[in-house]
Amino acid sequence: MSNPFVCIVMGSDSDLPVMKSTFDVLDELGVRWEAHVTSAHRTPERTHEIIKSAEKRGCAVFISAAGLAAHLGGVVASLTVRPVIGVPMEGGPLNGYDALLSTVQMPGGIPVACVAIGKAGAKNAGFLAAQIIGIAHPDIAKNVRDQREKSVREITDKDQALQEEIDRR
Amino acid sequence: MSNPFVCIVMGSDSDLPVMKSTFDVLDELGVRWEAHVTSAHRTPERTHEIIKSAEKRGCAVFISAAGLAAHLGGVVASLTVRPVIGVPMEGGPLNGYDALLSTVQMPGGIPVACVAIGKAGAKNAGFLAAQIIGIAHPDIAKNVRDQREKSVREITDKDQALQEEIDRR
Amino acid sequence: MSNPFVCIVMGSDSDLPVMKSTFDVLDELGVRWEAHVTSAHRTPERTHEIIKSAEKRGCAVFISAAGLAAHLGGVVASLTVRPVIGVPMEGGPLNGYDALLSTVQMPGGIPVACVAIGKAGAKNAGFLAAQIIGIAHPDIAKNVRDQREKSVREITDKDQALQEEIDRR
Amino acid sequence: MSNPFVCIVMGSDSDLPVMKSTFDVLDELGVRWEAHVTSAHRTPERTHEIIKSAEKRGCAVFISAAGLAAHLGGVVASLTVRPVIGVPMEGGPLNGYDALLSTVQMPGGIPVACVAIGKAGAKNAGFLAAQIIGIAHPDIAKNVRDQREKSVREITDKDQALQEEIDRR
Amino acid sequence: MSNPFVCIVMGSDSDLPVMKSTFDVLDELGVRWEAHVTSAHRTPERTHEIIKSAEKRGCAVFISAAGLAAHLGGVVASLTVRPVIGVPMEGGPLNGYDALLSTVQMPGGIPVACVAIGKAGAKNAGFLAAQIIGIAHPDIAKNVRDQREKSVREITDKDQALQEEIDRR
Amino acid sequence: MSNPFVCIVMGSDSDLPVMKSTFDVLDELGVRWEAHVTSAHRTPERTHEIIKSAEKRGCAVFISAAGLAAHLGGVVASLTVRPVIGVPMEGGPLNGYDALLSTVQMPGGIPVACVAIGKAGAKNAGFLAAQIIGIAHPDIAKNVRDQREKSVREITDKDQALQEEIDRR
Amino acid sequence: MSNPFVCIVMGSDSDLPVMKSTFDVLDELGVRWEAHVTSAHRTPERTHEIIKSAEKRGCAVFISAAGLAAHLGGVVASLTVRPVIGVPMEGGPLNGYDALLSTVQMPGGIPVACVAIGKAGAKNAGFLAAQIIGIAHPDIAKNVRDQREKSVREITDKDQALQEEIDRR
Amino acid sequence: MSNPFVCIVMGSDSDLPVMKSTFDVLDELGVRWEAHVTSAHRTPERTHEIIKSAEKRGCAVFISAAGLAAHLGGVVASLTVRPVIGVPMEGGPLNGYDALLSTVQMPGGIPVACVAIGKAGAKNAGFLAAQIIGIAHPDIAKNVRDQREKSVREITDKDQALQEEIDRR
Repeated sequence: MSNPFVCIVMGSDSDLPVMKSTFDVLDELGVRWEAHVTSAHRTPERTHEIIKSAEKRGCAVFISAAGLAAHLGGVVASLTVRPVIGVPMEGGPLNGYDALLSTVQMPGGIPVACVAIGKAGAKNAGFLAAQIIGIAHPDIAKNVRDQREKSVREITDKDQALQEEIDRR
Repeated sequence: MSNPFVCIVMGSDSDLPVMKSTFDVLDELGVRWEAHVTSAHRTPERTHEIIKSAEKRGCAVFISAAGLAAHLGGVVASLTVRPVIGVPMEGGPLNGYDALLSTVQMPGGIPVACVAIGKAGAKNAGFLAAQIIGIAHPDIAKNVRDQREKSVREITDKDQALQEEIDRR
Repeated sequence: MSNPFVCIVMGSDSDLPVMKSTFDVLDELGVRWEAHVTSAHRTPERTHEIIKSAEKRGCAVFISAAGLAAHLGGVVASLTVRPVIGVPMEGGPLNGYDALLSTVQMPGGIPVACVAIGKAGAKNAGFLAAQIIGIAHPDIAKNVRDQREKSVREITDKDQALQEEIDRR
Repeated sequence: MSNPFVCIVMGSDSDLPVMKSTFDVLDELGVRWEAHVTSAHRTPERTHEIIKSAEKRGCAVFISAAGLAAHLGGVVASLTVRPVIGVPMEGGPLNGYDALLSTVQMPGGIPVACVAIGKAGAKNAGFLAAQIIGIAHPDIAKNVRDQREKSVREITDKDQALQEEIDRR
Repeated sequence: MSNPFVCIVMGSDSDLPVMKSTFDVLDELGVRWEAHVTSAHRTPERTHEIIKSAEKRGCAVFISAAGLAAHLGGVVASLTVRPVIGVPMEGGPLNGYDALLSTVQMPGGIPVACVAIGKAGAKNAGFLAAQIIGIAHPDIAKNVRDQREKSVREITDKDQALQEEIDRR
Repeated sequence: MSNPFVCIVMGSDSDLPVMKSTFDVLDELGVRWEAHVTSAHRTPERTHEIIKSAEKRGCAVFISAAGLAAHLGGVVASLTVRPVIGVPMEGGPLNGYDALLSTVQMPGGIPVACVAIGKAGAKNAGFLAAQIIGIAHPDIAKNVRDQREKSVREITDKDQALQEEIDRR
Repeated sequence: MSNPFVCIVMGSDSDLPVMKSTFDVLDELGVRWEAHVTSAHRTPERTHEIIKSAEKRGCAVFISAAGLAAHLGGVVASLTVRPVIGVPMEGGPLNGYDALLSTVQMPGGIPVACVAIGKAGAKNAGFLAAQIIGIAHPDIAKNVRDQREKSVREITDKDQALQEEIDRR
Repeated sequence: MSNPFVCIVMGSDSDLPVMKSTFDVLDELGVRWEAHVTSAHRTPERTHEIIKSAEKRGCAVFISAAGLAAHLGGVVASLTVRPVIGVPMEGGPLNGYDALLSTVQMPGGIPVACVAIGKAGAKNAGFLAAQIIGIAHPDIAKNVRDQREKSVREITDKDQALQEEIDRR
């Protein structure tokens, strides 16, 4: 796979503000991506076409985002042998707890790689996709390493700020 | 619909011992039924064919049984406009709590009529299907009424037995 | 049943803003309905009369909405052999989780068809009632099918909007 | 109320082995009681008669035991102004957690006095009923006090046994 | 007990806005009460004095309100043979779910009569206390009955308003 | 404090089989201890005496074990300024989840140091007590370090056994 | 990466019976693997060496299995830019629910790909690892596809057996 | 240890507003402290250095604060034999419930002393650290006792205010 990409599907456009974190992480790590709004239940045939077309065109990893009884990850996983990352969305009265169990508790045979509920998960879906692609693409793996070093500096800076704040007490 | 029937699908044959309660209730209430093992994720095409064929042949109500991240009810519901009853199965470390949320928390537009986890739900799926069919089939509605009267007598008998037990204390 | 209708009962008028979603869905799908505020516990006799009268006048499906220890669905179900759909309300410190378990975990014999907590459930109660009535009323079933096709177009439009947004990045 | 009694109702005779703890505690504390198997949903009219008759005959406290979506306590409470103690039963895949929420989360106006799930709750329902009756019946209150003193001795004895066991280590 | 009263204790004055619902219900039902801020852990000796003094002066029922790991109900119950009603407070990250389990799951021997979390429970603590006192005080029992009849009229009025709103649609 | 000891209290002798893990860990780490069965609710005065006496005699750390609505840790903490470690017991229908929340969610001011539910927590209560005492007693701290090194060897041995098992596949 | 392998680490040898499902799936799909017992907390340095050595020798994917407060997945993920799959183990009083949240709720930046609790997750960890490696290794991807076809036949056979059982009723 | 101090580490500077409660309590009780922002996963080496350096310089107690899958407490505990207090942070869709289980459910051998989620826990971490140090430092123990007496007066004052408010009703 010479230039693999990530295909992101989300069950509703209300998931978009959160899933933009995934777009940003993938951009930062130099990973190509495309994204679609499609529903496991309302547009099952369209979902089928999007996944099959993406796999044919060289999609390496799928990311699916859905809330409540979040079936989209499982439906995508049933249509491809590429790895599928599931992001449980936070909406609804149970705060995404239902989406978490609907995504992570997949029965044996058809895995979904579940990440955290909501924004933390949306970011981590991007990092995880880059790490997966990075196995065969050392430039992407290097970008992940660079990003981690950058985050070390960020935390060091924050600690420095804390020391100054403590000194002022 | 002159002679409607219920189509039961279950995600695994390990669900069969519980789902026999549904068979028994439907037999008792005089409702025709058929049943299939089919998986939302492992055999999505076969599931598609079973549901479409059943609807064409006069299926009035679908009952789906699945455990863990139970997507089968939602997948069936996306393929038909007939009502779909979902029975969350009890298996797995969370005792069916994951299956409950995966079944009941369906997003707006594609409902699944969820009943209790496990055996109580398997029975109630049969009763509910009969009540639904009974709307247009007074003989089935009468069978439901008769069964309820029978259960009144059963409870009365149990209370009588309790009184005798108390007297013996 | 020549012209069946849906009877909606809610335990408190505070449930009304959410349950208007049910009214709207039923109106959109061409299903006749009536609605009442009545309590399982505070007005048990009035609840009894409303249910018995509705069944006599041709009610095909009941929808009940209640929060906290939501007993209304079970009480309605004990009074009729028509199918009863229960909508767990979202209010209270447990966000409707108590209402969900109080509605869905009905013991064997007296089923309540439980849908999602809150607004998603209120919509789905309307869709489910229409699907149930649609078994014997092809015009209602056609309305459900038309609504689903409309929702396919809505999702396609949202995906189109997403593509344009991505292009602008 | 010259000689008040406690009326115990349980939703199923499968609750009997647990509820015998209530019988035993009431006997030990010298409180009169009667008990019935009756269901909130399957025998609503019979439940109505049992409660109304008991109240008329001098019942001071009701105890209700039910599992799953446990509505019996709420139904009893709607039929009487006597205090109602609810015992959530332990059965089913959620281990009585559903019965707990269905019993304790009663909306404002119709209280149920909820005790612990299962056997601990069955015992405490007996103690609580005796404490309630003991307000106006000093002999019953004295029995409660005596039982507490007895339990002090039991714990002291157990501690003594522990000291001996530790000495043998 | 010629003129019994209710003694309300709360673990923090932050519970006061919610517990005023208890004051109001008791006033409405003609039940005398007193109230104290006292902590199970920070002022154990003061708690001991308040409870012992109240019992001596004719307190018939205790109501305790506490949040988080709510031990106050259990501590009060260990100090008196009068019935203790526990109201789990809603504050904190778990929304009172911790207070619920800490209050309701009392081990056998020392019961706490638990009501719903937060405001619904605060109201019901008042109703329950009145019902308990009403066993031996028919005037209080009559007040409870009158209040229930009033609430029937309130619900009937709300239903009337709903009918008018539906007519205007 | 020249020769500090740990005082272990448990709410019931049914906690003993689990709490023997604490005894064993303390023995292994060379920490003196004593243990008592005493109840927060049934023997509050005795609990008071045990804690006050132990503190006076040089108790450095308290360990409390209790199940269900586990108040013992909080009650002990209210009686001493020595650190109190709480072990939530596993018994009952909620598997110790209630004991966990009743122990860990202590309101600000009176801390309980909560460890894991059941046996893992019973062991860790012993380790934690030794680590606390080890701050001022280097010999105890050394014992903890030695035990950790021993556990490194145990894990290394288990890994070696795994390698041999894999080789045999 | 010419011949990538999977490195499996587990926190305790008690996880071995479940994790053998992972070994079996990887063997069936033709994926090379190695496995180690190592603890995030007891042998942090050894864990560090195992992960660093495996990455250097061509490890493509890590699988970590741990129970209770399962930190092993996060610790491994902090040491490598290869994807890490976390399997929450089922043991302990909370049935693996604690391990699930400790594994899946990783903060943004260091993802762990979480699969289901226990045996279903152990299997899916193997499938997911094979799918990840299969992106750049078409022979592995083909093995996944073949295994899925085999499972279609298994389900078809089970359905056939069900039809025969139904015919015999 | 002549002048012991507390070392506080937090996984993110977003934890600072809550953890200032810990700073304030330690200042009030006369306990020296230092604090750092450092991450279990993003800066594992830096975390290692901070803990090792603090232990060498006389740190008696560590306090760690982290949210979501909170591994920081466990990582710190694996690096020192000093007691480690873990504060589960409240952020994220599960309100700190995930952080609670990730902190408290530590497997046997490496304990973390868990306190309540969020602000109550941040305060109690300070009190607990002071109580631990107070074992060998009577002046600190005296400060804890003085603070408790002060809080008795605060509660007495609040109760006085309540009595005045009641009188005004």
